[in-house]
Amino acid sequence: MSSSDIQITPIKQSKINSVDFNNLVFGTVFSDYMFECDYKDGKWQTPVIKPYGDISISPSARVFHYGQAVFEGMKAYKDDNDDIFLFRPEENFVRINKSSERLAIPEFPKEYFFDGLTTLLNLDKDWIKKGIGNSMYIRPFVIATQPAISASPSEEYKFMILLSPAQAYYAGEVRVIFSEKYSRAADGGVGFAKAAGNYAAQFYPTKLAHEKGYQQIIWTDASSHQFLEEAGTMNIFFRIGDTLLTAPNNDRILDGVTRKSVIQLAKDNNIEVEVRRVSVVEIKDAARKGTLKEIFGSGTATVINPILGFSHGGKEYELPTVENSYASFFKEKLMNIQYNISEDPYGWRVKI
Amino acid sequence: MSSSDIQITPIKQSKINSVDFNNLVFGTVFSDYMFECDYKDGKWQTPVIKPYGDISISPSARVFHYGQAVFEGMKAYKDDNDDIFLFRPEENFVRINKSSERLAIPEFPKEYFFDGLTTLLNLDKDWIKKGIGNSMYIRPFVIATQPAISASPSEEYKFMILLSPAQAYYAGEVRVIFSEKYSRAADGGVGFAKAAGNYAAQFYPTKLAHEKGYQQIIWTDASSHQFLEEAGTMNIFFRIGDTLLTAPNNDRILDGVTRKSVIQLAKDNNIEVEVRRVSVVEIKDAARKGTLKEIFGSGTATVINPILGFSHGGKEYELPTVENSYASFFKEKLMNIQYNISEDPYGWRVKI
Repeated sequence: MSSSDIQITPIKQSKINSVDFNNLVFGTVFSDYMFECDYKDGKWQTPVIKPYGDISISPSARVFHYGQAVFEGMKAYKDDNDDIFLFRPEENFVRINKSSERLAIPEFPKEYFFDGLTTLLNLDKDWIKKGIGNSMYIRPFVIATQPAISASPSEEYKFMILLSPAQAYYAGEVRVIFSEKYSRAADGGVGFAKAAGNYAAQFYPTKLAHEKGYQQIIWTDASSHQFLEEAGTMNIFFRIGDTLLTAPNNDRILDGVTRKSVIQLAKDNNIEVEVRRVSVVEIKDAARKGTLKEIFGSGTATVINPILGFSHGGKEYELPTVENSYASFFKEKLMNIQYNISEDPYGWRVKI
Repeated sequence: MSSSDIQITPIKQSKINSVDFNNLVFGTVFSDYMFECDYKDGKWQTPVIKPYGDISISPSARVFHYGQAVFEGMKAYKDDNDDIFLFRPEENFVRINKSSERLAIPEFPKEYFFDGLTTLLNLDKDWIKKGIGNSMYIRPFVIATQPAISASPSEEYKFMILLSPAQAYYAGEVRVIFSEKYSRAADGGVGFAKAAGNYAAQFYPTKLAHEKGYQQIIWTDASSHQFLEEAGTMNIFFRIGDTLLTAPNNDRILDGVTRKSVIQLAKDNNIEVEVRRVSVVEIKDAARKGTLKEIFGSGTATVINPILGFSHGGKEYELPTVENSYASFFKEKLMNIQYNISEDPYGWRVKI
């Protein structure tokens, strides 16, 4: 397939002038176009790009009843020359199909994904604003559309890509709870996948955390609640002394693109990094001894998000203010690559 | 609210004559009407009943991205006098709100639920066919509709009820695998809720089971895979000697309406029933000794579903053919109450 095979329905008029790009609320404003590709009769049909707007769907579509849906999160960046870049997009493409496999959704073809994404970004390129922190958040997702309310895999799907312009994501001062009761994922479950249902399952415990004054939860393993795993929309890093710690990937933890980029940057910048189980006890001990210097999350939306404190067993722990913070170091390194400011020895930056 | 407050848009013409009621595929045929109630501005709006058909919804609705959705399964039965009955509908109402709470969805009002359900069933009463095994499958569900792709609870929802006529549900000869690798739910997770995402998570492992010749999986606890929990769309009972065993409810196991009815019927019919953890080892030992007489599932769609054999650790175990099977006994008892054939000392049958 070449991008010329995508059927494009043009917009009548762009909405771009009605958007205040200096006051964007994350995930609420969408560009002029969207990409859509249906799966039926055993194959993905000809993709279309059309004006962003409501879709018509059966109320008995399996996505509504059985949560058969997966997604990805990516960003596009514009440099001072108006060139547009993606960051490691191959990783997102591979991962959405891994997620799909675990949810019994058919694999999406690579050429459809990249031709669709490129064509869409070119159509909506004026929506991507220059300047550090500005980006176009990209949301590929797949939903089960077959109208049948029996609990088995759908025979029809819709793959879509939405574009939502975003400013620098500032989550505010983030304090977290280490989970002691609720869990995000089971061994042998779907925690490693970007499965829709993984996210709704976190809303209620997170609401309870909010009521206690914490912005997020760091999930622990469901069996013992003794090991720190991820934050639901971010992977988590701990710095004890000058060593960086993060949990290994397993079937409960998302294989984050930002996470693996941080690990690579650490290795190449002489920061010792240990990818291993990180226990609650170890982090609390380090906090008490003063050797716990940083905790931060990593993810596409947030890039790197420093955590100021945590709570466990009813006790509060504050992180110190450190000079030469790893969080700042990695954030700058990553953004310099993403925005075409620095060299990119890894080939992570892909010009479209 | 009285049912007169529901806004009803009449159909132009019924589809009923186009339906072959002797060849229904479960969950694929829908009645003329559907019930719909939107939540916005902090409250549930005036419900409507309108012709069954596609809905228009934003592609950025949170249900598509974060799986914020719950459902229920119920049935209506018609007796020889054309009276229509529900089975313990209060249980389903209470449970959908328990599921909603865990998924951070606002509670649905009781009067809306029952007035909506009753009005809908009366409008579509000709779709409910007489005769043992015929029923109207009822699917209440709630989906998050707010167009915002940030991972937090929706501020807008749609509650719907669909009706799908059903014949006796014959699942065929059912052989199962006891899960050794995959899991359905985590401690502290959403397994007890009828959360949409719980179902899609089972599709892939079930597909693998199908490929090996098994129709379903009996899920074990995620931590040790040593205890038998439920079958995903059914609770599970084991009969060793003349004692009935089933797992206790916990945060991983659905509190099934048919399950609790079976337990009640067992107690009142001098069948010893133990509600406790049931280990894989115990069931395999009993199978080898010949004391394992029955395994059966219970659920609204299937009522009681006998299981003919199971596999674990690469070994096959066949269940014997027993006279006076508990499965047949409970199925008859339940259906006689549901179809208004027998007395109902429990008040489970509710005439509408």
